[in-house]
Amino acid sequence: MPQGVPAVVPDDGLTTRQRRNRPLLIVHTGVQKGKSTAAFGLGLRGWNQGWDIAVFQFVKSAKWRVGEEAAYKALGQLHADTGQGGPVEWHKMGEGWSWSRKQGSDEDHAAAARDGWAEIKQRLADQRHDLYILDEFTYPMKWGWVDVEDVVETLTGRPGHQHVVITGRDAAPALVEAADLVTEMTKIKHPMDAGQKGQRGIEW
Amino acid sequence: MPQGVPAVVPDDGLTTRQRRNRPLLIVHTGVQKGKSTAAFGLGLRGWNQGWDIAVFQFVKSAKWRVGEEAAYKALGQLHADTGQGGPVEWHKMGEGWSWSRKQGSDEDHAAAARDGWAEIKQRLADQRHDLYILDEFTYPMKWGWVDVEDVVETLTGRPGHQHVVITGRDAAPALVEAADLVTEMTKIKHPMDAGQKGQRGIEW
Repeated sequence: MPQGVPAVVPDDGLTTRQRRNRPLLIVHTGVQKGKSTAAFGLGLRGWNQGWDIAVFQFVKSAKWRVGEEAAYKALGQLHADTGQGGPVEWHKMGEGWSWSRKQGSDEDHAAAARDGWAEIKQRLADQRHDLYILDEFTYPMKWGWVDVEDVVETLTGRPGHQHVVITGRDAAPALVEAADLVTEMTKIKHPMDAGQKGQRGIEW
Repeated sequence: MPQGVPAVVPDDGLTTRQRRNRPLLIVHTGVQKGKSTAAFGLGLRGWNQGWDIAVFQFVKSAKWRVGEEAAYKALGQLHADTGQGGPVEWHKMGEGWSWSRKQGSDEDHAAAARDGWAEIKQRLADQRHDLYILDEFTYPMKWGWVDVEDVVETLTGRPGHQHVVITGRDAAPALVEAADLVTEMTKIKHPMDAGQKGQRGIEW
């Protein structure tokens, strides 16, 4: 809603432009499809603005996000070749994080998730990217692998102008509280209800 | 949920594979952000499968979807140049549909919306594309410019294997009824509530 009128104009000493350009913490949660696809769709806007985008994929299935990954890598390569859009990095926990020496280790998911978060924390401190997509990052928090309070403190105190999108079901209340934009993908209908399983091009 | 188990296995005479691969009618509705971004994120999966994708943008603001449009056109060009992914077409009502002689006509939105739907109907009959993204197409229906019954009949009777995604608020009940997958983007929080207007890279 670029043309929308805010319901409240806060007394925060910021101009409309300053307020408008504050970095966002965005959460896509709920049980229905659309959480990750909306994050990757949003990233297309950032890419077109020349933003530096980093994806951290906290899921393990090899099939998941292959389409998004291929398209994002193609867009990142296009940026490298022609300067259009922005650079893209794609990091996967499933194969062992790219920066980790524990390549392909599938032994300790909790430790791998903590490694991922430690790296993201460092990058936020270094103001390394413009947009971070932390795909399925609600689960390591839900399972107690990554401390929610640490995530909330780190994100609310992050320096500079870094947007962060977190996807996954069951977002922690403290994370929702800290976020600027929270969307719940609500199921009205799902093909599975009619006995239809996931298919190529739609689910992956 | 590619690994999910269907709640019901219908007695429809189809194998699991046949049922799995039925084309979907998908609706993204609700008041919150994420309807279009989720559609364009989904399209990345189809693009990676080599699908022929066509976007029909039923909105008028010049600023809207510029990021998605640039990224999709880049991906379509990449397909033309290298064969990776699939072809992409992007059609906008706002500038006058590409196939129309009424270029740039901004006189009669109702007529333009009807022209758009007539073209889509013809393409569906011709099985021209694998995935149709009808962005903000709920509005011409809501405003009575395009007949909901005609849309529902055309879509439920479409031949072959064509996926269709429709986005926008206030999806008509008959459309929801006919759809296979319906997601409502529910607002938990929006930056506008805190006086923050839309910004570059996030809203467009």
